[in-house]
Amino acid sequence: MEQEALYRLSRSLQKWILEAAAYTRTQIKQPLTVSTKSGPNDLVTNVDCANQAFLAEKIKTAYPNAQLVGEEGAGEVPDDWQQGLTFFIDPIDGTMNFVKQRANFAIMIGVYEDGQPLFGIIYDVMADQLFWGGPQLGIFENEAALKNAVDEPLQEGLICVNTRMVVTNEAHLQEVLYQCSGVRIYGSAGITFAHLLKGQVQAYISKLAPWDIAAGRVLAETLGFQVLQFDGQSISMMRKEGMIIAPKQAIQEIVTIMNGSND
Amino acid sequence: MEQEALYRLSRSLQKWILEAAAYTRTQIKQPLTVSTKSGPNDLVTNVDCANQAFLAEKIKTAYPNAQLVGEEGAGEVPDDWQQGLTFFIDPIDGTMNFVKQRANFAIMIGVYEDGQPLFGIIYDVMADQLFWGGPQLGIFENEAALKNAVDEPLQEGLICVNTRMVVTNEAHLQEVLYQCSGVRIYGSAGITFAHLLKGQVQAYISKLAPWDIAAGRVLAETLGFQVLQFDGQSISMMRKEGMIIAPKQAIQEIVTIMNGSND
Repeated sequence: MEQEALYRLSRSLQKWILEAAAYTRTQIKQPLTVSTKSGPNDLVTNVDCANQAFLAEKIKTAYPNAQLVGEEGAGEVPDDWQQGLTFFIDPIDGTMNFVKQRANFAIMIGVYEDGQPLFGIIYDVMADQLFWGGPQLGIFENEAALKNAVDEPLQEGLICVNTRMVVTNEAHLQEVLYQCSGVRIYGSAGITFAHLLKGQVQAYISKLAPWDIAAGRVLAETLGFQVLQFDGQSISMMRKEGMIIAPKQAIQEIVTIMNGSND
Repeated sequence: MEQEALYRLSRSLQKWILEAAAYTRTQIKQPLTVSTKSGPNDLVTNVDCANQAFLAEKIKTAYPNAQLVGEEGAGEVPDDWQQGLTFFIDPIDGTMNFVKQRANFAIMIGVYEDGQPLFGIIYDVMADQLFWGGPQLGIFENEAALKNAVDEPLQEGLICVNTRMVVTNEAHLQEVLYQCSGVRIYGSAGITFAHLLKGQVQAYISKLAPWDIAAGRVLAETLGFQVLQFDGQSISMMRKEGMIIAPKQAIQEIVTIMNGSND
């Protein structure tokens, strides 16, 4: 994409996300309509759906040829998502936090051009922290440029994880945790990415859907983080899959432990 | 304690904690002197020690007959701590977060009179959120009165836990987690209490030293939370011990699961 068109895309997405967030804040003290999806702890609310519809409408109008993938509504990732522009929308990431905490949730959009990371944006609505940018623009928290990831050994960093994977010790995850400085669980991919981007946690190990990872991947990779499956392969962006986000040294150590032969 | 003396104590502790926090903020971008205590993930910094010394000096001058128990320096809880006034000081709670995140840590003081909760104060330094009060004063976040705990079933709430207890499934903890809405780990007792007091998490299950629990216990009990050992007995405040903090319905469910006979 030409630089001028990219700037326009950046300004537009920031504007639309801030508008969706303003609406979301008006609903923060209201009763929510909450439904379950795959299980009792997989929630969707009226605000998720309203934000999805609002953002999809804005994007479709401005980019009529683009493909949309969204957590609420759009569903499956099309086989040809690597052709042209694709927008991955998460209208409320961390819906359980939204419902129970009325804080610590994010609105996220990741944009890919011919399958390559172009632009990512994550907005921590209640903290008013906007993380945005891409490989051609650099990465910013509000208006401040963020620093590259610090490439340290695993033992120097905090790790964010998926609770169920810890309990079942999937892929030797407990061994990874014993090697690091500590574990944090924030309940939202977007809020976890905010901590990664600010350098407050070193690694994130979880199972993420395409709309959970799309924006964070653009931002994190641009700052020098790697995003890999547990076996060290590239992620597909086609389905929910296990993945590790960390700088080079730590991700090498984590992949080694997770593929250890001490089963 | 007479009401007027209690107001004076409240004002004094708020003033001293805000002074310690102002100093702490000046150190937030500076290199820290970090030492380990019981293990590589049990840290103390020069700021912990400076805050401990500052707060202890202020308290000793104003309350020369009081007993002091502090994380850094004072050590053991005296056998006669239930006589007269006792101040439990945690000069930086969440030292790993302080070192790695430069956020999400707290300064805490709990005050007991003849062994009974009198006053508690927890300051989330970087978020500028001050939680304070006691049974005679009510409980406040900055100047806003906080509501009583919502007494709901376990399945309605988020739970904060100790990572090592999850990994080892100590006292059937994993079963508790399967019954609740989700797990969060914030890396600081004080930050976890902030979430409990705001109604953002329902329960906290961990092993806490007297200075970790002293302030939070005063605040949480006043809002209707209970604080019990895993077996349902009262806590001792004499040593680090396993404990559950939750409202009535949830704590009953948790104690039942943790003492289940399905070993």
